[in-house]
Amino acid sequence: MEIKEITLGELDAERFVAEKVKEISSTVGDGLAVNALSGGVDSSAVTILGHKALGDRLKTYFIDTGLMREGEPENVVSLLKDLGVIVELIDAKKTCFDALKGRSDPEEKREAITRSFYRDVFGELVRETGAKYLLQGTNYTDIEETVAGIKRQHNILEQLGIDPEEMYGYKIIEPLVQLRKSAIREVAKAVGLPQEIYNRPPFPGPALAARVIGEVTPKRVKIVRDATTVVEEELSRSGAFQYLAILHEDKVTGVREGKRDYGLQIEVRCWESTDAKIGSPTRLPHDVLDRLAERITTEVPGVVSVTYNITKKPPSTIEVV
Amino acid sequence: MEIKEITLGELDAERFVAEKVKEISSTVGDGLAVNALSGGVDSSAVTILGHKALGDRLKTYFIDTGLMREGEPENVVSLLKDLGVIVELIDAKKTCFDALKGRSDPEEKREAITRSFYRDVFGELVRETGAKYLLQGTNYTDIEETVAGIKRQHNILEQLGIDPEEMYGYKIIEPLVQLRKSAIREVAKAVGLPQEIYNRPPFPGPALAARVIGEVTPKRVKIVRDATTVVEEELSRSGAFQYLAILHEDKVTGVREGKRDYGLQIEVRCWESTDAKIGSPTRLPHDVLDRLAERITTEVPGVVSVTYNITKKPPSTIEVV
Repeated sequence: MEIKEITLGELDAERFVAEKVKEISSTVGDGLAVNALSGGVDSSAVTILGHKALGDRLKTYFIDTGLMREGEPENVVSLLKDLGVIVELIDAKKTCFDALKGRSDPEEKREAITRSFYRDVFGELVRETGAKYLLQGTNYTDIEETVAGIKRQHNILEQLGIDPEEMYGYKIIEPLVQLRKSAIREVAKAVGLPQEIYNRPPFPGPALAARVIGEVTPKRVKIVRDATTVVEEELSRSGAFQYLAILHEDKVTGVREGKRDYGLQIEVRCWESTDAKIGSPTRLPHDVLDRLAERITTEVPGVVSVTYNITKKPPSTIEVV
Repeated sequence: MEIKEITLGELDAERFVAEKVKEISSTVGDGLAVNALSGGVDSSAVTILGHKALGDRLKTYFIDTGLMREGEPENVVSLLKDLGVIVELIDAKKTCFDALKGRSDPEEKREAITRSFYRDVFGELVRETGAKYLLQGTNYTDIEETVAGIKRQHNILEQLGIDPEEMYGYKIIEPLVQLRKSAIREVAKAVGLPQEIYNRPPFPGPALAARVIGEVTPKRVKIVRDATTVVEEELSRSGAFQYLAILHEDKVTGVREGKRDYGLQIEVRCWESTDAKIGSPTRLPHDVLDRLAERITTEVPGVVSVTYNITKKPPSTIEVV
């Protein structure tokens, strides 16, 4: 199937929403649908489209993998509640960290998260509800990158641990598959999501695990989470496309109170981009860079060094893992 | 013994040179002295002071560890030859890389270099010449950092593999021990060294091994050497105190010709400092940062990501290992 992009210029958000609500409604009929909400613009828009189409025949879960940012699970559930959408918060921290234990290879890490998230947690929830319709926030860039071999191809049903013979009973609905991020933001705005969500910088599927080089442990996630809080506070008014903190596995020499202190390094990235296909580092004022380094080395225990990414995508990627 | 600093303001370079030449001459008498020249401002100044005092009774070696920058061993020998000083170039590449094999820990790496450089190579040369006087470029900051526990205390004779009972027969001469770097530059200028040397940015004892996180192999040194060439070309006119390239051990995701390319990261550091005690990152123009990243990812095979250090010393250090 050839998927045709609807560009931001071509998009009539109101009409798009009406069409997608109608499509979802007619596809699901009087069945049940489920979806997993991450709080990103894609899954939030899908949640509202599904809710408009199906009301409480859409069951939405927020799965807390332990890899989210500070306060994020509670904030997202509360934001959706304000829009009349009840989201169930699932604590899957132990399952996810157990799956990540001892893994340093990026592919293995992504695989472990995908497997524990989809098969062990979400797959179980899908089975419990008995829903046969799955709403997914797949976008046009995801498709493109899968085709190009940058992202791996996912068979979502296989990931959910659903047998091949059962698979024909299920249907995947991907209402945003023709849109890139900028168009999805328009849709999110049109369905009444707050600016906090429709302007939210992209955040990766594997969440903070995508920002930890090497093994992902609760302790290392806490470090990158604290650094992320500083980066988001300092850069949220920068107007940049995306900004992030990365915890390196390499240790570097530092000095504290006149003594050698062998410590951690955090890399900050801040991107100018429209759709994550290409990007360049934001030309942040040097005072901002100073403040980032000062705050991170002061507020995040163990960090003695902060760097700023100066490489464009390509050859860099937006995230590190 | 309390060592008293002579500050840049207090220094009368001509008088200092005359005094040190006289001191070296009266200490060595009609004996023989040896020293190892790295091409840095400290060891170059010591070489000239020793040469002025002793003529060809000073034997100077340049030990090529395989860890020097592009063309450096030949350049240094040639520069000194222009000043009438014959320096013997010793190829110790195999000895040094063998000692570094399989070592990732910074302390172990420094130890391996020190041991192979001093005991296995320079110690052998000292013994061959029969010289009992060793000229060393130790400066005031080295002493201070050793006292503070930032650098490790070295017993040079022990490092040379000389028995404790033999040690009393040897004498270490450290003419620069009361001076910091800025004062040493004045001395280097006063003894007639070219600007290329008296204004040369500091370069660490373990050379490029100090700029490789993880194992130091000929292949990894080649990568950081190539990156160093770019950094020095781009930043030599910046007026900065020191500028360097670091090869990380962490691998990061990149993208080349639309395909995922798991590659290397180079960190660039550029310092404003007067004596390396404290320092802050140079506020390089963003065009320069762009060009650094562009050139390094293009000219150094395997590199997909370049970062710029934004942390002050402290809590960072100037070098990484």
